[in-house]
Amino acid sequence: MARAPQSPLAVSLGDPAGIGPEVIAKCWDNREAFALAPFVAIGDPRSIGAVWDGPIEMVEDPRQADAAFDYGLPVILLNTPEADVPGHPSVAGAHTSLDSLEIAVGLARSGSASAVVTGPVSKEQLYAIGFQHPGQTEFVAERCGVAPENVVMMLAGPTLRTIPLTTHVPLSEVSARLSTAFIEARGRAALRGLQRTFGIAEPRLAVSGLNPHAGEGGQLGREELDIIEPAIAALAAEGWRVTGPHPADTMFHARARANYDAALCMYHDQALIPIKALHFEEAVNVTLGLPIVRTAPDHGTAFDIAGQDRADPRPMAAAIRLAAQSALHRLAA
Amino acid sequence: MARAPQSPLAVSLGDPAGIGPEVIAKCWDNREAFALAPFVAIGDPRSIGAVWDGPIEMVEDPRQADAAFDYGLPVILLNTPEADVPGHPSVAGAHTSLDSLEIAVGLARSGSASAVVTGPVSKEQLYAIGFQHPGQTEFVAERCGVAPENVVMMLAGPTLRTIPLTTHVPLSEVSARLSTAFIEARGRAALRGLQRTFGIAEPRLAVSGLNPHAGEGGQLGREELDIIEPAIAALAAEGWRVTGPHPADTMFHARARANYDAALCMYHDQALIPIKALHFEEAVNVTLGLPIVRTAPDHGTAFDIAGQDRADPRPMAAAIRLAAQSALHRLAA
Repeated sequence: MARAPQSPLAVSLGDPAGIGPEVIAKCWDNREAFALAPFVAIGDPRSIGAVWDGPIEMVEDPRQADAAFDYGLPVILLNTPEADVPGHPSVAGAHTSLDSLEIAVGLARSGSASAVVTGPVSKEQLYAIGFQHPGQTEFVAERCGVAPENVVMMLAGPTLRTIPLTTHVPLSEVSARLSTAFIEARGRAALRGLQRTFGIAEPRLAVSGLNPHAGEGGQLGREELDIIEPAIAALAAEGWRVTGPHPADTMFHARARANYDAALCMYHDQALIPIKALHFEEAVNVTLGLPIVRTAPDHGTAFDIAGQDRADPRPMAAAIRLAAQSALHRLAA
Repeated sequence: MARAPQSPLAVSLGDPAGIGPEVIAKCWDNREAFALAPFVAIGDPRSIGAVWDGPIEMVEDPRQADAAFDYGLPVILLNTPEADVPGHPSVAGAHTSLDSLEIAVGLARSGSASAVVTGPVSKEQLYAIGFQHPGQTEFVAERCGVAPENVVMMLAGPTLRTIPLTTHVPLSEVSARLSTAFIEARGRAALRGLQRTFGIAEPRLAVSGLNPHAGEGGQLGREELDIIEPAIAALAAEGWRVTGPHPADTMFHARARANYDAALCMYHDQALIPIKALHFEEAVNVTLGLPIVRTAPDHGTAFDIAGQDRADPRPMAAAIRLAAQSALHRLAA
């Protein structure tokens, strides 16, 4: 088992009708093979029992989870009016998923838990009960008192970390969303996140170009010259180790990856194609810029396979493992 | 050694001051480890001798190369006024690289060679001597009497083949370059190429979306609905096995790759990021739609490391191996 941070991790179950309960229970089953530090799940134990026959240890406080972890999956109870059926999301389940997230964040904020790992929720279900945030990340940021523009989403795998600067934007509008100030601010937040969350004293950030061949000196687009290079120069002038703009197609092979700690990418697929091509089962979503450590597996509720014992626990295990490592880095800092 | 096609392969040396001569000589050195069928190089043997001490067998016709291949690297002589110095391109060298290409294509057209593998040339050098084509691919197409819009560039690696629909276009202009007719025509050419060049009787083509999440039903862009889906429907109506538009970020992991023979991608980096992330040392550039087989390693002249014994021969070996396999598929068809 991995070296444990001082407090257990808090893991929100996510939507009780999704695959969250199943993958979290499978993580406890395989806690030694996956090298997982103690964690406590927060949610309705009936949604775990519906998909898993293993032992559950009810606890009231994460501090009890350490001792309980050897005997069963520690769970902090959320009372819900009725149990959800796997694959059939409900309004009650959406409330449970939000309560679970809220409590997990509170435990980490108070120091009772060393980090938060969030199970997958359904945005459609959450919107139906009045949820106002684009996703869990923005909700966690608000609960931590951090403006959403100051948090950075990173995808982290064993040999690659990428950060998409823009996310759910049509490809033809990406260029208009980029500015030197934006790239500079996100780059700085990413570099600080690499220090705080990954314990890298002098992080190296590789910045991608937007166009083929990074614009080839302006012949294939001018964003590199006009927008990206000034941001890199500004960060370098502050003493950060920043390189680029790099042609995106030659940034992600093994030898290139060895030259940086994270790649700052201009758009969704530029960041997500390489991380998922290389590390589909191990890519973890990490939120940088928060006072707490927060990770999540990079998959959704998968209602279509919930309750069928088909869900792959490796992404959740990777998220739990990375959260524990990051919590240790924060303790050491 | 791999099963050989009836005739040897013709390999143009590329620019004599680049790494072409070195990687081709190293391929002969490692012909058994690389499982290479007999090939004949076309160029100035002095440019090989400048970077390699192995035996050269001068031949006048590819048919002699089969017997000579066991004793030395077979070379068809191109007389040039003076030998180039590695790393120092010249006008004479540019002429040599073009003559080498022309002869290699002619040998394949006549059937004396079973396929053409092209060494890396310098476009700047070729433009300086009046070369009018965007690259070697278009030159080869013209010599074969094929319109450039009817050839398709594919990048092929051991577990992935991708086709960029647009190449050297600024990212913000990609959308405007796409049309249903264009995607349909290129898709059909790609499918026929998979049959002829790769010997796949019922090829499966996966078509990517342009936008994040393939547009998510029009919420993140409409190109999928308006342009890409009609092209897929038209190809499917002809009986081809075509799927998509797929979200690009979830197309390239191992399990997804098993579902198709080639991915038709909307832009340069969408095709090149995954192939180079997964297969940087083995990605081969294959030209589909020609009456002959033509492959090339996916790298340039690398003048900066020429003559230093540092060039990696694996991409050239992969190009030679794939050319031989493709020639066999054509013989069998």
